[in-house]
Amino acid sequence: MDKIQMELFEQLTGLHEIPAGAYNIRANSKKDSRNTTANIDIVTKEDKDGIDIYVKPGTKNESVHIPVVISKTGLEECVYNDFHIGEGADVLIVAGCGIHNSGDKLSRHDGIHTFYIGKNARVKYVEKHYGKGDGNGENVMNPTTIVNIEEGGYMEMETVQIKGIDSTNRVTKGKLDKDAKIVITERIMTHGNQTATTRFEVDMDGDGSSANVISRSVARDNSKQIFYSVINGNARCNGHSECDAIIMDNAKISAIPEITANDLDASLIHEAAIGKIAGEQLIKLQTLGLTEAEAEEQIVNGFLK
Amino acid sequence: MDKIQMELFEQLTGLHEIPAGAYNIRANSKKDSRNTTANIDIVTKEDKDGIDIYVKPGTKNESVHIPVVISKTGLEECVYNDFHIGEGADVLIVAGCGIHNSGDKLSRHDGIHTFYIGKNARVKYVEKHYGKGDGNGENVMNPTTIVNIEEGGYMEMETVQIKGIDSTNRVTKGKLDKDAKIVITERIMTHGNQTATTRFEVDMDGDGSSANVISRSVARDNSKQIFYSVINGNARCNGHSECDAIIMDNAKISAIPEITANDLDASLIHEAAIGKIAGEQLIKLQTLGLTEAEAEEQIVNGFLK
Repeated sequence: MDKIQMELFEQLTGLHEIPAGAYNIRANSKKDSRNTTANIDIVTKEDKDGIDIYVKPGTKNESVHIPVVISKTGLEECVYNDFHIGEGADVLIVAGCGIHNSGDKLSRHDGIHTFYIGKNARVKYVEKHYGKGDGNGENVMNPTTIVNIEEGGYMEMETVQIKGIDSTNRVTKGKLDKDAKIVITERIMTHGNQTATTRFEVDMDGDGSSANVISRSVARDNSKQIFYSVINGNARCNGHSECDAIIMDNAKISAIPEITANDLDASLIHEAAIGKIAGEQLIKLQTLGLTEAEAEEQIVNGFLK
Repeated sequence: MDKIQMELFEQLTGLHEIPAGAYNIRANSKKDSRNTTANIDIVTKEDKDGIDIYVKPGTKNESVHIPVVISKTGLEECVYNDFHIGEGADVLIVAGCGIHNSGDKLSRHDGIHTFYIGKNARVKYVEKHYGKGDGNGENVMNPTTIVNIEEGGYMEMETVQIKGIDSTNRVTKGKLDKDAKIVITERIMTHGNQTATTRFEVDMDGDGSSANVISRSVARDNSKQIFYSVINGNARCNGHSECDAIIMDNAKISAIPEITANDLDASLIHEAAIGKIAGEQLIKLQTLGLTEAEAEEQIVNGFLK
C-alpha cells in the first residue's frame, strides 16, 4: 500500500500497521497482501471476484481483517466474499472500504458479503465505509450483507458510514434458526448532495430467535436518507427495530419500518423518531462557550458515538 | 326502516330512535328519511350517488347523522358524500354502515367521504362499520375518507370496525394547512377468515400543523390485517403514529408505518407493537374466577375500549 492507501486503511481499521491474525488487503482491485492462520483460511474465488474465508469450528479469540482501499479514480468493482464460520467459533471480522477519489470519474465498490454462521458460533462483524477526494468524481458504495445463522448462533454487526460517500444503497438480510440472535447497529451521516438508502430484512424462522436493529443517522445540507427495516416473526421470537434520525439544513429523511407477525408467539416492536437538534441543547452548550456550529458538532458526534 | 334495519341503525349510532338535528338515513341504496336545520343543509348529488352536507359558518353544538343500512343480500354500491364545514363551526358528524346479509351473495358498500373544513372549524367525526348475517354472503366495506383542513381547523376522527366485515380496505387521507390538527383513532377486530387493510396518509403542509394517528387492533382465528401509516412533515409540524396490535390464534398482522421529514422543523415519531396477550394477565384474571376464554374476552374488550 502507498501512503494514500495506508491512510484509508487506518480510517477503516483504526490500526497503524498490518494487523495480527488473518487478513486480506485489497488495493485498487488487486490482492495487496494476505495472511492465514492455523484456524482461518482465505481462498481466492475462481468463478468470480472475491474470497472465501473459512473459520474452523471452535476457533476462539481470532480476527480477520479484509479492508478494501481504492485510490484510483474511475475504478468500479463488484466483489463476493463468503464467510464460513465453524460450529462454536468466536471471531472478530473487520471489513470495509475506503475510496480516495481525486479524479473526475465515478469510483464504485459493491461488496456482497454472505455469512454462514454455524451452530453456537459467535461473530462480531464491523464494517466501515469512508470516502475522500478533492476531485469531482463520485464515490459510490453498495454493500450487501446476507447472514444465515444456525441454531444458537449469534452475530453482532456494526456498520458505520461517516463521510464522503456520495451514493450508497445498503442491503442487509438475516435468516435466523432456533435460538439464533442478531444485533445490528448502523450509524450514517450524509452531507452535501449525498443519498443513502438502507434496507434491513430479518426473518426469524426458529423458536427463541431474536433480532435487534438500531439505526442512528444524521442528514445535513441537501442530503437524502431512506431507512427501510423489515422484520418478520415466523416463530416464537422477539424483534425490535429502532431508527433515530437528526435532520439538519435542507436534508430529507424517511423511515419506513415494517413488522409482521406470522406466528402467535412473535413479539415485535418498532420505534422511529426524526427531528432536529433541540434548541435547549444548543443553548446549553453555547453558554459553556461553544459557538453554535461547535455545539452542533458536539451533539452530532455524541449521537453517532 | 324495518326491524332489521332499525337494529343496524342502533348498532351504528347507539340511538334507539331517529336523532335530533340534521340527518340522512339511507336504506338499501335509497333515501329513507332526511332532516335539515337552519344551519345544516343536505342536498342530493345530481351527477353521482351521494349527498352534499353544508354546515354554515359559526354553527355550534349541532350534529349530523348519516347512517347507511343494508339488509338485502347482493347489494353493491358506491356513495360519494361531501362535507362543507363553514369557518368557525363546531359539529359532530356520525356516519357508518351496517350490513345484515342473510343471503348467499356479496354485499358491498364503498363510501367516499370528503371533508372541506374551514378556518378554525372543529369536527368530531365518528364512523362505525358493522356486519351481521347467517348466510354465506360476504360483507365488504371500503371506506375512503379525504380530509382537507384550513388554517386553525381541527378534526377528531374515530373509526370502529368490530364485527362481521369479511373484507375491508380503509383509506384515510389528510391535508393540513397552517395550525390545522387531526387526531385519528382506529379500532379494528377481525375474526374468521376476514382481511382488513388500513392506510393513513397525512400531509402536514402548514407551519404549526399536527397529526396523531392511533390504531388498536385485534386479529383472531385466521384473519389477516395490514396497517399502513404515511406521515409527511412538509413544514414546522408534529406527527405521531402508533399501532398496537394483539395477535390471537392463527392470525397474521403487519404494521408498515412511514414517516418522512421534508422540513428541518418537522418532528415525527412512530411506534408499533405486535404481540399476544401476556400470560400473566390471563392468569391474574383466571385466579379471580374467570375461565381462560372469559379472561381473553375481557382483555380484548378493554384494549378496544
